[in-house]
Amino acid sequence: MGAVFRTVLALTVMSAGAALLPVELTAQAAPTREGEEVAAYVGSHRAQIVRELVTLLSVPNIASDSINIRKNAELIRVMMERRGIRTRLLETGGPPMVFGELDVPGVSRTILFYCHYDGQPVDASRWIGHAPFEPVLRAGRLEDAPQILEMPAEGGALDPEWRIYGRSASDDKAPIVAILTALDALAAADLRPIWNLKFLFEGDEEVGSPHLGAVMREHRGLLAADLAVIADGPAHPAGGPTVVLGVRGIVTVELTVFGPAMPLHSGHYGNWAPNPAERLAELLASMQDDDGRVTIEGWYDDVTPLGEAERAALERLPDDEDERRLLGISESEGGGRSRWEMVTLPSLNVRGLRSAWVGPEARTIVPERAVASLDFRLVRDVKPQDQVARFLRHLERRGYHVVGEEPDPAIRLAYPRLAMVSATRGYPAVRTPIDDPDVGRMIEAVRRATGEEPIVIPTLGGSVPGYLFPEALSAVFVSLPTVNPDNNQHSPNENLRLGNLFDGVAIYAAVMRMPL
Amino acid sequence: MGAVFRTVLALTVMSAGAALLPVELTAQAAPTREGEEVAAYVGSHRAQIVRELVTLLSVPNIASDSINIRKNAELIRVMMERRGIRTRLLETGGPPMVFGELDVPGVSRTILFYCHYDGQPVDASRWIGHAPFEPVLRAGRLEDAPQILEMPAEGGALDPEWRIYGRSASDDKAPIVAILTALDALAAADLRPIWNLKFLFEGDEEVGSPHLGAVMREHRGLLAADLAVIADGPAHPAGGPTVVLGVRGIVTVELTVFGPAMPLHSGHYGNWAPNPAERLAELLASMQDDDGRVTIEGWYDDVTPLGEAERAALERLPDDEDERRLLGISESEGGGRSRWEMVTLPSLNVRGLRSAWVGPEARTIVPERAVASLDFRLVRDVKPQDQVARFLRHLERRGYHVVGEEPDPAIRLAYPRLAMVSATRGYPAVRTPIDDPDVGRMIEAVRRATGEEPIVIPTLGGSVPGYLFPEALSAVFVSLPTVNPDNNQHSPNENLRLGNLFDGVAIYAAVMRMPL
Repeated sequence: MGAVFRTVLALTVMSAGAALLPVELTAQAAPTREGEEVAAYVGSHRAQIVRELVTLLSVPNIASDSINIRKNAELIRVMMERRGIRTRLLETGGPPMVFGELDVPGVSRTILFYCHYDGQPVDASRWIGHAPFEPVLRAGRLEDAPQILEMPAEGGALDPEWRIYGRSASDDKAPIVAILTALDALAAADLRPIWNLKFLFEGDEEVGSPHLGAVMREHRGLLAADLAVIADGPAHPAGGPTVVLGVRGIVTVELTVFGPAMPLHSGHYGNWAPNPAERLAELLASMQDDDGRVTIEGWYDDVTPLGEAERAALERLPDDEDERRLLGISESEGGGRSRWEMVTLPSLNVRGLRSAWVGPEARTIVPERAVASLDFRLVRDVKPQDQVARFLRHLERRGYHVVGEEPDPAIRLAYPRLAMVSATRGYPAVRTPIDDPDVGRMIEAVRRATGEEPIVIPTLGGSVPGYLFPEALSAVFVSLPTVNPDNNQHSPNENLRLGNLFDGVAIYAAVMRMPL
Repeated sequence: MGAVFRTVLALTVMSAGAALLPVELTAQAAPTREGEEVAAYVGSHRAQIVRELVTLLSVPNIASDSINIRKNAELIRVMMERRGIRTRLLETGGPPMVFGELDVPGVSRTILFYCHYDGQPVDASRWIGHAPFEPVLRAGRLEDAPQILEMPAEGGALDPEWRIYGRSASDDKAPIVAILTALDALAAADLRPIWNLKFLFEGDEEVGSPHLGAVMREHRGLLAADLAVIADGPAHPAGGPTVVLGVRGIVTVELTVFGPAMPLHSGHYGNWAPNPAERLAELLASMQDDDGRVTIEGWYDDVTPLGEAERAALERLPDDEDERRLLGISESEGGGRSRWEMVTLPSLNVRGLRSAWVGPEARTIVPERAVASLDFRLVRDVKPQDQVARFLRHLERRGYHVVGEEPDPAIRLAYPRLAMVSATRGYPAVRTPIDDPDVGRMIEAVRRATGEEPIVIPTLGGSVPGYLFPEALSAVFVSLPTVNPDNNQHSPNENLRLGNLFDGVAIYAAVMRMPL
């Protein structure tokens, strides 16, 4: 899933603020009898469920802490085996991936659940009242309920509004516990999963999933699945259950435009020596119109337009108005289209500019070079290398000679317009069509499990290598984030609202029981 | 003359390289009898002249060294009094200005000679073979003639190609000695200056002439002159005697364009949240055409076109081709016009750009702001505040609301296009018309003194507050730089080619003797 997954979600949510976007839920679905049975199990086993999570949170899980990270893997393996899952550690050279399988006789279709068990580094001095790996219970948010409560005994009461504070409480250990508990709840109701289940719990997501692609390719057969369910990240801030069908790909590019061979006195040489900052500005300005639409030829050519169902899903999403104001944006780009719609298009973003100096360090010079750092976000069917090629053609059409490395003096003298471009390899987007039958089944399962209409997001704007699931495993990509948006993930005082854990059990159980 | 004067010249020259621009001198003028007499005096007093300079160079002259800097002033005062000049120290609170007067009975017209006696800071560890304030003699450039020679006794031989190494040898103590020696040479030939003479030797030019404007305004009457001769900076690299008739003014501007209230994840918000780096690029691109010509309305409106004589002077200047190649410029802006012609126009230069990060620090964000630092160079009759006003109008025409200080959140929300601009006060240009009769007399005097056709530069591209001479003193501004271009000014191993000192005596003597 790549290191960035929870970042993507976290940033969305952190920027948006937790309770920022109240949403009127338009539909209410009645829970099924199965759903009620699962809920009953959870209701009577709250303390036990939370205890298992607390035990898991008590094992430090920084990926670079090779001894403790492996203890996490071993503990999870035990937790899985206890549910009858056949497990195996997939060695990577770093933290192992914990793989598990639970077959249903006579069934050919498979769901792969993905989570990660490593967590972000901690600064213990900024955790209030306890150490990051000594999880505690509070009767609400730290800000409202600073006292630390006793962990209840078996069968003790636990309000859904209470919270567990500890590293990885939300990101991403709670979903592991929720998924495994779903098996307990089904078993208690004498129900079995309808799908074959596989599990892949990664141990170094927070450092960028350096081994995920290789492991998927090496164990293609072992990991093969029809449907990959990514259980990571917070639910939509509006508060309903959330189904995410895509993430964008990304490729980053650095563009350098050259001026004179050395910075020159701007009095003597300004407006005679070509100014690379001015040239760069002109070039960047040529790439977008006034409303931010990319004017590079072919930029949108490969975009698969949204279908009716995706458009309808977008329309059901809460509007951006409160968020826009909170972010200090007077007027968004895109002619009034929503942010969720805009992220279904490939973007060009100038993420940084640098030429000589500004402010008190400014010197009256013609700079020697000017640099822009850009990121191109990709959507389904738009390939990283194709966008880079379109960008390069744009430079060439505007008279630039483009080089891939620092040009020597002869090259600089030879070309009046000279640019250096370096691009990362990047990776493509993934977006599962909303009318994919398995997506429909999953939305229905979530609806039934929660009694609420799920918030369906055709694609997140951020980028994670979710494409690996369809590409390496031929699995349909769907993300089911369940934890509370205000969980402080990656920050001190990370926490989990217990209600989100309990609802997660219900959601994952329903997924395991959805029709084939 | 302002701190920047020698910088301006130095940078021109350092960038151009010393012997880079060989020039075919088209005219040879025969020295006058007076010129021969001055030359004869110099020829027979070389050791004495150099000794006086060496004595002056031996007094450390960093402006912040308040004891030694005043010793310089006192020594110069003695040197002046010895020539019959009435002197006075003009106190500034910092280093005093040394003022002097030498009247010619019955004459109403006055030349004011300006030099500075302070020097740049020194890093003694980088001076080769001696301390910066223990000047030494070498038989040429350090690179060619590393041995240190004995200072010759009175009447001893001194080759014009030999050099004195020491701080301020060229910048700017040699011209002080040359000007005072000119009086000796005239006296020896039984000649007297034709003009009343005034002298203003500044003691903190290298820290930015913080008191020059105030002193000029306070002592307006005392300093009043018809003609101000700035004796500072190196001669044109082509090697001939040089007359400079102007310098540009300057005003600097910082332009900030705002995006969202905080950096935003570019995946979620890119191409929905307005990107300030892209907006800034668009704005900067709107200010110039492809060839660097400023397209802000009215930018060139107040420019006084060059006259025939100025155009002719420009055409006599060496071409830029070698310089262009040396500077790594494939094609200059301005449609092939020379650098010397381009600096007769007001410029807009983007001297720096900054938004978020580039390179390894780049983050995939929509930046919160983007900043450009600009300098506007001004030419005669173009006022700093008028150019700033035109710039502001341009922003407003492009839909920007412009503020003068950091905008609060309500302002940011209120204006879709919001810019913050801060501008320095700046100061105007000065350019004396080439057909001013005193300029004609001076060119003729230099021609006669040296037997060479002077290189006449209508204006330098750089900026110093030369406008103060006409504005505060009603004096015509002319600069007569005489020292060698390869003098390492501001650097370790500053030096003076003795021939330039001797020629300087001849030039300044001729100026003192030019017809009223």
